[in-house]
Amino acid sequence: MAKVPYKTYLTEEEIPKQWYNIRADMKEQHDPFLNPGTLQPITTEDLYPIFARELCKQEMDAETRYVDIPDGVLEFYRMFRPSPLIRAYNLEKALDTPAKIYYKFEGNNTSGSHKLNAAAAMAYYAKEEGLTSLTTETGAGQWGTALSQACAFYGLDLTVFMVKVSFEQKPFRKSVMETYGAKIIPSPSDTTEVGRAILAKDPTTGGSLGCAISEAIEKSLGDESCRYALGSVLNQVLLHQSVIGLESKIAMEKIGEYPDIVVGCAGGGSNLGGLMAAFMQDKLTGRHNSRFVAVEPASCPSMTRGRYAYDFCDTGKITPLAKMYTLGSQFIPSPNHAGGLRYHGMSPILSKLYHDGYMEAISAEQTRVFDAATLFCKREQILPAPESAHAIYGAVQEALKCREAGEAKTILFGLTGTGYFDMHAYAQYNDGTMSDYIPTDEDLQRGFDSLPKVE
Amino acid sequence: MAKVPYKTYLTEEEIPKQWYNIRADMKEQHDPFLNPGTLQPITTEDLYPIFARELCKQEMDAETRYVDIPDGVLEFYRMFRPSPLIRAYNLEKALDTPAKIYYKFEGNNTSGSHKLNAAAAMAYYAKEEGLTSLTTETGAGQWGTALSQACAFYGLDLTVFMVKVSFEQKPFRKSVMETYGAKIIPSPSDTTEVGRAILAKDPTTGGSLGCAISEAIEKSLGDESCRYALGSVLNQVLLHQSVIGLESKIAMEKIGEYPDIVVGCAGGGSNLGGLMAAFMQDKLTGRHNSRFVAVEPASCPSMTRGRYAYDFCDTGKITPLAKMYTLGSQFIPSPNHAGGLRYHGMSPILSKLYHDGYMEAISAEQTRVFDAATLFCKREQILPAPESAHAIYGAVQEALKCREAGEAKTILFGLTGTGYFDMHAYAQYNDGTMSDYIPTDEDLQRGFDSLPKVE
Repeated sequence: MAKVPYKTYLTEEEIPKQWYNIRADMKEQHDPFLNPGTLQPITTEDLYPIFARELCKQEMDAETRYVDIPDGVLEFYRMFRPSPLIRAYNLEKALDTPAKIYYKFEGNNTSGSHKLNAAAAMAYYAKEEGLTSLTTETGAGQWGTALSQACAFYGLDLTVFMVKVSFEQKPFRKSVMETYGAKIIPSPSDTTEVGRAILAKDPTTGGSLGCAISEAIEKSLGDESCRYALGSVLNQVLLHQSVIGLESKIAMEKIGEYPDIVVGCAGGGSNLGGLMAAFMQDKLTGRHNSRFVAVEPASCPSMTRGRYAYDFCDTGKITPLAKMYTLGSQFIPSPNHAGGLRYHGMSPILSKLYHDGYMEAISAEQTRVFDAATLFCKREQILPAPESAHAIYGAVQEALKCREAGEAKTILFGLTGTGYFDMHAYAQYNDGTMSDYIPTDEDLQRGFDSLPKVE
Repeated sequence: MAKVPYKTYLTEEEIPKQWYNIRADMKEQHDPFLNPGTLQPITTEDLYPIFARELCKQEMDAETRYVDIPDGVLEFYRMFRPSPLIRAYNLEKALDTPAKIYYKFEGNNTSGSHKLNAAAAMAYYAKEEGLTSLTTETGAGQWGTALSQACAFYGLDLTVFMVKVSFEQKPFRKSVMETYGAKIIPSPSDTTEVGRAILAKDPTTGGSLGCAISEAIEKSLGDESCRYALGSVLNQVLLHQSVIGLESKIAMEKIGEYPDIVVGCAGGGSNLGGLMAAFMQDKLTGRHNSRFVAVEPASCPSMTRGRYAYDFCDTGKITPLAKMYTLGSQFIPSPNHAGGLRYHGMSPILSKLYHDGYMEAISAEQTRVFDAATLFCKREQILPAPESAHAIYGAVQEALKCREAGEAKTILFGLTGTGYFDMHAYAQYNDGTMSDYIPTDEDLQRGFDSLPKVE
């Protein structure tokens, strides 16, 4: 039997009792969020109408290094955490690489992804504050499912604006959320001003995450006992998702490993930000010098081809402005692309770290990503989400480099979720009808033209 | 924090190295399989044209108490086993019961069920023997997916005859199997004599497991390097699935528990047979006296309303005859019913144990089953397969009895799988269009009329 087991689990006692706030160790903070009207930095209080109060504080707090995870959240975590750290022995064999490949698998829960980590926190704080409902948006559906689950558990109503193209491609995702009691509205919809305006301009639009965000915020603003929740991009999300990396680090210590390279897919940054935080701390504080690689789709290349600029987080331009890598809030990714990672922007924290040279980014065409996904299916026996498959692709590239160089590096990647609700994409790949889409410079310029004039 | 953790995992070293053969401890064996032509007991050699040789031996071996699990199978098991034993704290709270409810969760793998335990063994033995391909049938799709995964891993071709009604309801199940390289044919098909005969009689039939079994066997018989594999009913399947109960027993010992009641859903018996074997051993040998409860759908009540008689395992009447609880090989369950458990017969081992009074059986209407499933979703956060939800229903009934009696019994049930590919059924339940179907005595009589005349 192999010395290192296939799966390393922590005990439930070993689940971290605190989240890690990477901002406390960053040399420089990301530029402040700006009020879209005044262009002045926003305050914690400015956010109160949008998010539950505790979450507003977490969003703005760059100083507290460790934040206690409430017992009520830990109770929820114990139903699906700790997640396993898995040694990809069979993938290594198939690649004939001396590299040691590990992945942290966050998909063994009904939401099918890591999104449940943040959903539990947001629903818990909303309930504690006495709110009775939340709104949110969902693209591929993992976040909407995760928040539906958490709201069912804590006893909150939930309205989910689901990007229309996903709503139509994934009727069963809708059924999962409804099973947990959520109300699902395809976006853009005629239930909000933003939605009606977008529909007036283009009645046949398939929608976008940015548009669904606008609708969800608008709806929450009309109800004092309701707030909005967002599953990526935000600082609070990276805080909650830090549990992924904290667990990974403890598990790797147990088996005497430390990653030379950390790889994650990047849409808004929730997974990669959470996976890498505990390891990036070691880099920021000079204890280790791992490489960090973000893998994004060639069809939506926020970091590899985007601008580092102030932009809105939504299409309707009602959110605060964030300084981030962006393709412009009016950039609508090709519906051709499978799964999530279809967001125009990127976590301000990740953007800052990337801009300051602490991490790298690559992009991948989707058929190459599904090549990697299918290999992984057959050797590691887990059918990955299209998003997660970007990380597999990145890890495979690194492992092949190790083969050429004859180096036994340790690679850690985030397997964020499973693809059971993404089989339309696999079906396209299997029957050869999947195509790649790479925006031209002109396509990107149209998005950049929508950037607000700041500075 | 609670004394007993939510999830109890064994280490990979603790995965059982041997399967347990319950026949070695049964006071009486089930009646022998009969050659359908001669009505004489069959020999191991008679089975060689159908199954891989090692599996034929396992099918007929009532004496070897423990069978070594080959290293090549253990390697596969380590990718998804051990599975967790979970304390259902939040379900207990919702039911306000003094009962302690545990479930062994077999759904955390891409097949979505326990079926992978037997699939790995069958594909491994076929490969070892030098065979190049397998055929099988699938209803709800878990078994076909499991065998697709195992065949991809060991390097075998696979043809899956998928019950036509499932093929049409579950296009994404097909895509999963195709991703693993399997060829899927809706059954009945025009590729076999049996299929053509059934289509000639009823061109619009939705098919049945019994019919798909006939087609898969017929196809394998035409190719010397090909054999057939079956995911339930057989003795070899109960042997392979015994790993479920063996792991459960070790996990319960670790936390100082022993089940007073063991509950499982029953279609062909693969899950319940595997879950209960290690505990039934204690009953057969006088060490413990647990109760064992099979839960079957009211629409396909093999044990609760069937006959204990010799019958064919398939609709085409080409398999050996087995003495079992059966509704008759020509009984076609209502397509109204969701998921698996739609098989006319029952494992001969389970049938014998039930007939001899070692276990009980109840039936449940499907809307009541989905009531239990939905409660479980919200409290335990896992969306169960419709099959597994029968076991939840049974466990809830026992827990409610404990509440009335004020008894803190320990209940163990098998959560065989997840329902991510069964959302059409949840959608029906959610929108109120799901209905119950209970066959009339006349419906059942038509099935009984098809029983072969033996004895």
